Amino acid sequence: MNSFSFHNPTKICFGEGAVEQLASEVKRYGSNVLLVYGGGSIKRTGLYDRVLQQLNAAEVRVVQLGGIEPNPRLSSVQKGIELCRTEGIDFILAVGGGSVIDAAKAIAVGVPYEGDVWDFLVHKATIRESLPIGTILTLSATGSEMNGSSVISHWEEKQKRGFTSSYMYPRFSILDPTLTFSVPRDQTVNGIVDIMSHVFEQYFSLTKDTPLQERLCESILLTVIENAERALDKPDDYTARANLMWCGTLALNGGLISLGMDNDWSSHGIEHEISAIYDIPHGAGLSIVFPNWMKYVMNERPDRFAQYANRVWGIERNGKTETELALAGIEATRDFFTRIGAPSTLADFGIGTEQLDRMAYEAVRFGSIGSFKKLDQADVRAILQHCL
Amino acid sequence: MNSFSFHNPTKICFGEGAVEQLASEVKRYGSNVLLVYGGGSIKRTGLYDRVLQQLNAAEVRVVQLGGIEPNPRLSSVQKGIELCRTEGIDFILAVGGGSVIDAAKAIAVGVPYEGDVWDFLVHKATIRESLPIGTILTLSATGSEMNGSSVISHWEEKQKRGFTSSYMYPRFSILDPTLTFSVPRDQTVNGIVDIMSHVFEQYFSLTKDTPLQERLCESILLTVIENAERALDKPDDYTARANLMWCGTLALNGGLISLGMDNDWSSHGIEHEISAIYDIPHGAGLSIVFPNWMKYVMNERPDRFAQYANRVWGIERNGKTETELALAGIEATRDFFTRIGAPSTLADFGIGTEQLDRMAYEAVRFGSIGSFKKLDQADVRAILQHCL
Repeated sequence: MNSFSFHNPTKICFGEGAVEQLASEVKRYGSNVLLVYGGGSIKRTGLYDRVLQQLNAAEVRVVQLGGIEPNPRLSSVQKGIELCRTEGIDFILAVGGGSVIDAAKAIAVGVPYEGDVWDFLVHKATIRESLPIGTILTLSATGSEMNGSSVISHWEEKQKRGFTSSYMYPRFSILDPTLTFSVPRDQTVNGIVDIMSHVFEQYFSLTKDTPLQERLCESILLTVIENAERALDKPDDYTARANLMWCGTLALNGGLISLGMDNDWSSHGIEHEISAIYDIPHGAGLSIVFPNWMKYVMNERPDRFAQYANRVWGIERNGKTETELALAGIEATRDFFTRIGAPSTLADFGIGTEQLDRMAYEAVRFGSIGSFKKLDQADVRAILQHCL
Repeated sequence: MNSFSFHNPTKICFGEGAVEQLASEVKRYGSNVLLVYGGGSIKRTGLYDRVLQQLNAAEVRVVQLGGIEPNPRLSSVQKGIELCRTEGIDFILAVGGGSVIDAAKAIAVGVPYEGDVWDFLVHKATIRESLPIGTILTLSATGSEMNGSSVISHWEEKQKRGFTSSYMYPRFSILDPTLTFSVPRDQTVNGIVDIMSHVFEQYFSLTKDTPLQERLCESILLTVIENAERALDKPDDYTARANLMWCGTLALNGGLISLGMDNDWSSHGIEHEISAIYDIPHGAGLSIVFPNWMKYVMNERPDRFAQYANRVWGIERNGKTETELALAGIEATRDFFTRIGAPSTLADFGIGTEQLDRMAYEAVRFGSIGSFKKLDQADVRAILQHCL
């Protein structure tokens, strides 16, 4: 186990009706609120009205920024920063999924920074300040509601980059599983893949002597697998939605489940290059990349993959070699993704070989990626080739 | 799953050498520091000198309060409160195990309160303020290093009570597993029992549909069981000590592992009555009480006890009834406690029937205890009878 630091100050309000706690939470932090949201689904579901009621009750002034894209764009973030400055915003409320929350975080750290907020994403500047933010989560996937990370796309340059800072932890996040009842099937699927992928990036680690962390990871995977089809079959199943929601939050939670372990994150890096160019959903990209990454890297540590097959998929060890077990676990993953309707090839999105070289080049722009197996440009190219 | 709130703002610095982070942490919070510690083991191990070096480096003034008892007493807390007031203390540093940390917490909330700090423990007053505290943990057991709870004994009245407040979370806790290398065997054993007991109080719950929480609990139990004898056989085994330490912190962590579940805590309540009178170590008392509590309450939910037997102790389900499995799991618990040298009867401490009625009366002084099975005075008396 490695040494580590951990500090996650986000307050969670979880459960049906938790939105009713919004007024009292907001009042602690500001009086001029920027309300950030996405494509308008919150208006259809009535959540928008409930939020405005709460903000009225809190007696705060509200400025709105809707239309945040599924892969949130730098241009929207810049627009939000300008709005905050001209309107004297002192608190940002994100209502939506990971994209909306990620955009809100980038706006929050961009406001007090003189330069272009993109500087933070290309390691040109360090975050030293931010506006406080709060969130109401409407999609189980990202974990962004309880961590300090954000992913932003520079659409013109076809770049999608992530960044992390202690300044980007939300002050509070409201998690009401009933708000996810109306999430469409494909987005629910993408969220499930996203949650599992977050765990994979942490679980497949070279760090030794981390039995608790491994079990925490396995606990989330088992629970997601157990509840996924239940939520897909019956979208208003509170228990299934609640379990997925809490799994999503704990899966990427300032590293909670894998403290003291090296993380990898190269599959995320590779996926970011795909969606930077083709604007496909993050979860869909991960569903395509992950099984191929697994197969490419499994020989670094077949024992961990064997453990995964055994503990997560219940594949009995009897007589099998570690490699056989590992492969069976990867197949089980692929089968599960297919069973819930997640894509398995780039061809599912009509993507061919055209941009493979560019994506491989961009993925390692700041150096080789990954820690389970360090990947250079040729490695990424090979994994993408398997994704076709 | 129930609705819940969660907010754990404690920062953790974990790993060998983490004490070197003390100076920079302390500087954020105060300049007049009360250093609280126990019976002097930190002087024998050299930790005391390292702490003073760090406090010197932080350029803070240091006032000392040593001699905190293993079951920390109200009188020590009151002494600490007086010291803080006369010396203008603005930060409290606890260096020790749960007792020292619990005392520091009680001092911290007592300083700004006009009345007697005991008022908080008997529900006569509400905590609204506190001094900031930080901790350096020297014993894996209590979880107090990352939660808002404290247990204090009123020795003259033979009462031992716990209290919890958001104001009592440490600002930071330094967790260096090497600091536990010198913990004597019996204290290591008591710590192991304490950690497992904290999980039991949460895991044996009537709340349904909490698969993730149950697995998080099982993850800790499995890891403690796996590492316990290793740490006892080789006290300076870093991996074993690190795993126990992190298990202990996560086991009682503002409820992290059991959010959305009803907790029980009646075994702790019963144990408190034993150590309030006989001043035996908390972990030793729990080792005696828990298997007897389990047997007394298992019929409330044999399925959970059967799951415990199967998942934690690996007892195969084949052909067994739930009750048989449950009993086998309880026996496995008892056997494990015996194997690591934990006591199993009150007689091990020379305790007979003399005070059983009094303990049963005191345990339910504020009403029946427990939620898995509500226990009245007669129930507690019966459980204590089994402990003889």
